[in-house]
Amino acid sequence: MDHMIDAGLVSAENERLSADLDRDYANLGEKLARNGVSIDAVTEKVAAYGIAVPSWGVGTGGTRFARFPGPGEPRHIFDKLEDCAVIQQLTRATPSVSLHIPWDKVDDLGELKQRGEALGLGFDAMNSNTFQDQDGQAHSYKYGSLSHTDAATRQQAVDHNIECIEIGKALDSKALTVWIGDGSNFPGQSHFTRQFERYLDAMKTVYAALPDDWRVFTEHKIFEPAFYSTVVQDWGTNYLIAQELGPKAFCLVDLGHHAPNVNIEVIVARLIQFGKLGGFHFNDSKYGDDDLDTGSIDPFRLFLVFNELVEAEGKAGFNPAHMLDQSHNVTDPIESLMRSATEVCRAYAQALLVDRKTLSGFQQDNDAMMASQTLKQAFRSDVEPILAMARRKSGGAIDPIATYRKAGYRQKVADIRPAVSGAGGGIV
Amino acid sequence: MDHMIDAGLVSAENERLSADLDRDYANLGEKLARNGVSIDAVTEKVAAYGIAVPSWGVGTGGTRFARFPGPGEPRHIFDKLEDCAVIQQLTRATPSVSLHIPWDKVDDLGELKQRGEALGLGFDAMNSNTFQDQDGQAHSYKYGSLSHTDAATRQQAVDHNIECIEIGKALDSKALTVWIGDGSNFPGQSHFTRQFERYLDAMKTVYAALPDDWRVFTEHKIFEPAFYSTVVQDWGTNYLIAQELGPKAFCLVDLGHHAPNVNIEVIVARLIQFGKLGGFHFNDSKYGDDDLDTGSIDPFRLFLVFNELVEAEGKAGFNPAHMLDQSHNVTDPIESLMRSATEVCRAYAQALLVDRKTLSGFQQDNDAMMASQTLKQAFRSDVEPILAMARRKSGGAIDPIATYRKAGYRQKVADIRPAVSGAGGGIV
Amino acid sequence: MDHMIDAGLVSAENERLSADLDRDYANLGEKLARNGVSIDAVTEKVAAYGIAVPSWGVGTGGTRFARFPGPGEPRHIFDKLEDCAVIQQLTRATPSVSLHIPWDKVDDLGELKQRGEALGLGFDAMNSNTFQDQDGQAHSYKYGSLSHTDAATRQQAVDHNIECIEIGKALDSKALTVWIGDGSNFPGQSHFTRQFERYLDAMKTVYAALPDDWRVFTEHKIFEPAFYSTVVQDWGTNYLIAQELGPKAFCLVDLGHHAPNVNIEVIVARLIQFGKLGGFHFNDSKYGDDDLDTGSIDPFRLFLVFNELVEAEGKAGFNPAHMLDQSHNVTDPIESLMRSATEVCRAYAQALLVDRKTLSGFQQDNDAMMASQTLKQAFRSDVEPILAMARRKSGGAIDPIATYRKAGYRQKVADIRPAVSGAGGGIV
Amino acid sequence: MDHMIDAGLVSAENERLSADLDRDYANLGEKLARNGVSIDAVTEKVAAYGIAVPSWGVGTGGTRFARFPGPGEPRHIFDKLEDCAVIQQLTRATPSVSLHIPWDKVDDLGELKQRGEALGLGFDAMNSNTFQDQDGQAHSYKYGSLSHTDAATRQQAVDHNIECIEIGKALDSKALTVWIGDGSNFPGQSHFTRQFERYLDAMKTVYAALPDDWRVFTEHKIFEPAFYSTVVQDWGTNYLIAQELGPKAFCLVDLGHHAPNVNIEVIVARLIQFGKLGGFHFNDSKYGDDDLDTGSIDPFRLFLVFNELVEAEGKAGFNPAHMLDQSHNVTDPIESLMRSATEVCRAYAQALLVDRKTLSGFQQDNDAMMASQTLKQAFRSDVEPILAMARRKSGGAIDPIATYRKAGYRQKVADIRPAVSGAGGGIV
Repeated sequence: MDHMIDAGLVSAENERLSADLDRDYANLGEKLARNGVSIDAVTEKVAAYGIAVPSWGVGTGGTRFARFPGPGEPRHIFDKLEDCAVIQQLTRATPSVSLHIPWDKVDDLGELKQRGEALGLGFDAMNSNTFQDQDGQAHSYKYGSLSHTDAATRQQAVDHNIECIEIGKALDSKALTVWIGDGSNFPGQSHFTRQFERYLDAMKTVYAALPDDWRVFTEHKIFEPAFYSTVVQDWGTNYLIAQELGPKAFCLVDLGHHAPNVNIEVIVARLIQFGKLGGFHFNDSKYGDDDLDTGSIDPFRLFLVFNELVEAEGKAGFNPAHMLDQSHNVTDPIESLMRSATEVCRAYAQALLVDRKTLSGFQQDNDAMMASQTLKQAFRSDVEPILAMARRKSGGAIDPIATYRKAGYRQKVADIRPAVSGAGGGIV
Repeated sequence: MDHMIDAGLVSAENERLSADLDRDYANLGEKLARNGVSIDAVTEKVAAYGIAVPSWGVGTGGTRFARFPGPGEPRHIFDKLEDCAVIQQLTRATPSVSLHIPWDKVDDLGELKQRGEALGLGFDAMNSNTFQDQDGQAHSYKYGSLSHTDAATRQQAVDHNIECIEIGKALDSKALTVWIGDGSNFPGQSHFTRQFERYLDAMKTVYAALPDDWRVFTEHKIFEPAFYSTVVQDWGTNYLIAQELGPKAFCLVDLGHHAPNVNIEVIVARLIQFGKLGGFHFNDSKYGDDDLDTGSIDPFRLFLVFNELVEAEGKAGFNPAHMLDQSHNVTDPIESLMRSATEVCRAYAQALLVDRKTLSGFQQDNDAMMASQTLKQAFRSDVEPILAMARRKSGGAIDPIATYRKAGYRQKVADIRPAVSGAGGGIV
Repeated sequence: MDHMIDAGLVSAENERLSADLDRDYANLGEKLARNGVSIDAVTEKVAAYGIAVPSWGVGTGGTRFARFPGPGEPRHIFDKLEDCAVIQQLTRATPSVSLHIPWDKVDDLGELKQRGEALGLGFDAMNSNTFQDQDGQAHSYKYGSLSHTDAATRQQAVDHNIECIEIGKALDSKALTVWIGDGSNFPGQSHFTRQFERYLDAMKTVYAALPDDWRVFTEHKIFEPAFYSTVVQDWGTNYLIAQELGPKAFCLVDLGHHAPNVNIEVIVARLIQFGKLGGFHFNDSKYGDDDLDTGSIDPFRLFLVFNELVEAEGKAGFNPAHMLDQSHNVTDPIESLMRSATEVCRAYAQALLVDRKTLSGFQQDNDAMMASQTLKQAFRSDVEPILAMARRKSGGAIDPIATYRKAGYRQKVADIRPAVSGAGGGIV
Repeated sequence: MDHMIDAGLVSAENERLSADLDRDYANLGEKLARNGVSIDAVTEKVAAYGIAVPSWGVGTGGTRFARFPGPGEPRHIFDKLEDCAVIQQLTRATPSVSLHIPWDKVDDLGELKQRGEALGLGFDAMNSNTFQDQDGQAHSYKYGSLSHTDAATRQQAVDHNIECIEIGKALDSKALTVWIGDGSNFPGQSHFTRQFERYLDAMKTVYAALPDDWRVFTEHKIFEPAFYSTVVQDWGTNYLIAQELGPKAFCLVDLGHHAPNVNIEVIVARLIQFGKLGGFHFNDSKYGDDDLDTGSIDPFRLFLVFNELVEAEGKAGFNPAHMLDQSHNVTDPIESLMRSATEVCRAYAQALLVDRKTLSGFQQDNDAMMASQTLKQAFRSDVEPILAMARRKSGGAIDPIATYRKAGYRQKVADIRPAVSGAGGGIV
């Protein structure tokens, strides 16, 4: 395994922090034991948990107003893989990378796969892109892609998705994620029903190209880049799609793609109940699709989502994909992804602490107060010792960000990778 | 037919306004004819249109903070029927009344039906009530009704719904509308999936009691009276319900029951496409379920909903129920309902003016500008002459509110019906 | 001091839990000491903290749809005081009660004050009520109160507020809180500017009646019971009011009175900066003015508000009033208020743990990652041992709710106070 | 005057449409006369009305996901001026252009001014840009500009604003508009108060550089590009700024910069009342800062804003600046700006039709129904004949978009201006 961060440094840093960790872990363990919870069992589950990082997430993101790149921006998928390997090395929570085509296209897929293996990284769901025009593209997606009124444009989008499947097959990916920007900006611009019918027809062709052991995840979003209507606007439409396509089709939930105030955990529960929860794009948001670091704005909401996931563990066919999908505009992307992976693990660990038997009793008795308190008690548990112990046991860093900074990785790649000048956003 | 308003007064008022109406109608007709539209054909369709009024709508509504009754509040369903008859007499757009049980329970259903007939009113969908406790009720709905954890409470709610069907059968109603307040106020209070399973089970029993020629409409709502989660929170869950229940089950869309910013017309289109649009509760809102007069806050949104409905006219099995559902806190309820019925007719008339063939061409060509303009042109047409002409031709009033005021109906009933003192809302 | 809960029971319960508490407190103390934080200093500050409970909060709340009373509903302010005394006895965090006039009017204010003293309760801000009509009231507030178009109605509302001041003077209250329901339901109904001018004029008269050592708190709210516009719709208007009135006028922030997505902690910071933060009505909400238990929906937001308050501690003239304002629809109100007082203390304790010097450095260096982590680290600290220790030291209960339940208080008062039947909400 | 569109073509097109226009105008005039309104007086006011177009608006906009340029994209400010001249020639409603620095920087300001004059265009408010980094810029705005923690960066931003004033002076502009992207993405990242203090300090320096006959407009925005907090988040903070700066400082209202559900017309009324309404950036939106064509999503809201403006006409010192600010992603920008200018005129004309004396009486009497109807009656008037007549009388086109299309302007410039390839948005 190629280590991006010197293993000795990781060990030295861990050494420095281990005594406190051991003490905190023991104290927490004793406290949990009072409630009949084995801390080691929880730690084991957390250690076994993994979430995919998006290849594009290791580059600095931007808005339509501007993008402010940082030092050492990755130049291509091989640079990105190395950055992802840092995240996995230190957190041990991100064993796979989710690629985006054509951004991550390479000539030699074998080389790419090999490089992933060398870095200890697998390849998660493939992401297609029909929301941008690429140089030399025959048909523009300005007015849509899979739902375009023009058949040739739809076919081009279908072909692109099938190409993504082909690339994924070579990389042992097992899923295709389809998010489209299709919609309309003005009342009247699109005929909602015909547009959706065209989308369904196109997706059926994509679906037909899925290998037997693959799944397809469709993603809904209320707005942006379309500002009046979107074709896959919410989970209701997303569910209809999954139902129309068939048993390999599932719904993907991005935490930032809903209307204000919407209760996302209920949606998660409904999709689980009806066997159509495909997975998540984790991030956090306050206003729209803000794509902030997971758990940074509303950590309790994240916990409530994981509460549903833990509740469903063991249910037949329940196997949602977990992926981060964020835009890192003002932080070092590697730091944000490490922090976010940690926050997801935190929510998972907290959800594992929920006393489900007791909770179920309170629910049955309509004891709203104690039911609520049962969740809150799990949420307010400081599970950091569990997360740190899981990382240390798996060979990661007790304090990933501090270790990363000490390693000077960012400066190292900045010396190699050329500086990128401040690019304007879409408005210019 | 028993006329609540003196027919001579209506005629005299119409007489006064007829010359101007005829001129405006002729001018509009000439203008529409330039675009190949026959004004008389539109007027005929508008005249044939009807929307149900809710029996409870003729009483002054309130909030949890207070209720400020007006003079002449109806004492019972017979008073309410008379108020509804006023609305129908003057607008000719509200031929039926939607009852709410137990608020409108009577000993003699035959008498009630007869009174409706005498007043020229039919009976639309029956509304059940399992969101309040009635005196002497065995089981409380404090913690839910059809989804309650307690089987006896669920059965009581099922029985009540079946009773509503029975009452409706005697009145020639053909539909049951089910809205529940079930949900939870705190994370953890309810197990989302079990709660929804219980709801589905209960509704299946209600469904089984539906006569062959009846439909059941389930209504979704994002919040209130439950403030953390609701069982039927959005159209996605509502669709699942209709699908689970069977071919007589349909989704009801209340315009004020959605999250902020949600595009309601897309939801309407999706439900039409998948054969599950049951009907509407029309009203308007700016913040939540404000239950304001239809068209008073966002008339363009109302038009866009009707644009979908006109688009779907003629589609097999397409037969949505139209009902007003508003809370009249600061206006005379009769005036608000007359105005709202008129606004619904206005949106319908405007939607009928959309040049659909031309629009379709713009949509196919992605001419977003002209497609948008096509809708806007129809919307900005002042169709008041069409509405007034439809009313006059049907025996109604050219200016319903002015005629109503001149008739002094409110004062007349205030003399008969005892004054109601200001009752507090739910917070006290 | 009259104890509502047997002191022996409290002691016995505490005894049972003390060993675990001592251990947890020591462990947390050790951990905090590593970061240079003295746990005892934090505990001392928490123990000194107090928040007012609203007299109306001890009764079961409701919505416009229904109210479901529980057993032992308080009949009058003396019952309410006893319920409040329970909360204070067990949590030691709620030393005062905020009255609502006319709900809490009594003939003998001396008796009321004495009863408060006997129960160890002071009287916080007085709340006036001009959003409901009282029996026999000369002028209705249906169309407004302090901003009504009619001068006599405005005068009545002014007089009522002055009466509230008079009552408060007798009870050693030092503040008047003014929340009005004034606004409009339809565009056009009110002339925004004239309406606001009338409000300002009326409030100036109220202000003139304020004793020198009193403050007046005005409260903004985006909607409900008015559904199109409100007179004091947001903090911007609220600030204008405080500025117009003078140095004794301040803005009250209710956490549930803002538009969706609004960043409340920025508003708090602005009001502090400009010397006009009067205080809070604490509660939590997901959709609108849901009035749920503080911290039950978004505990991180509550922490962020307290982060601003701790940041401002010591600033000249900074002395905000803290009050709970909730509607307890599905829980025992006493339990909800005890829990909520605890959650407020929790947010305060967590905010006290923020390493402000370090944070300031990260902010200066634009180290968004570490600045964010600094807050998150404080937030995720499980400060329950601090809260419990503060309660125990002050004579309260380590576990208030468990102790309350064991004491059987609710059953005891249910035996004395007559059952209340389910009253309908405002819609009937 | 240099005409971009052949004047003969305009005349010919007008000729074709004049008979119908004359008839419609006469009919509308007759109808309005019944209510005592002189149509010619209204037409005159509409003809005198003017709104500025943003120089950047004539280029195709984009989102962070993509930008899809159209044919004939303007290369520089001289191309943009020509496109703006088309809009003014055909609509006669857009006599001035608002520049954006540095996007519109030129070597020879005299040449620019001359070109404007030749095209019949004046120069409206200058817009500074401190939300993007320009090549070779000494200090990055990644972490803020006027509120940056670093003094040199703040000074750079101040200098840039002063440079904008200098440029504007040479062009006879009389105002500076300041919108900043400053804020934070994570709780803790910025110290709200210190950040705002730095902003105020910097703006005071800018303010000091304002000529006596200039105004400065500050613009608030709830989010984007900052996703947790913004420095000038709402009108409350904006008002504080204007107050702190002095009598030449005013608040700018962009219709898309508010939280969901916020009542913008109340804000407009408040700013007018307190003498701080500087002007508008007109556009429309459904979700966030969607920057859609004005009036395309919620035309009634636009009308309600103009209702406030007409209400305030004649008030001392009342002189708000009107500007369009939109992003044209799927339409020809020239068409969108022509349509939007027309929609603004439409709202103005409709607001002029409001019978204010009658309305005032209904408001005084709390006749909510008739007050609401009074506004609705004005709104539903089809004032297109007034707008078209105002254009024809001023030398513009009766149907601007049809005339523009017939003139083939887009194709003409596409032949001259090089094609632009699809650029990615900020996320790449």
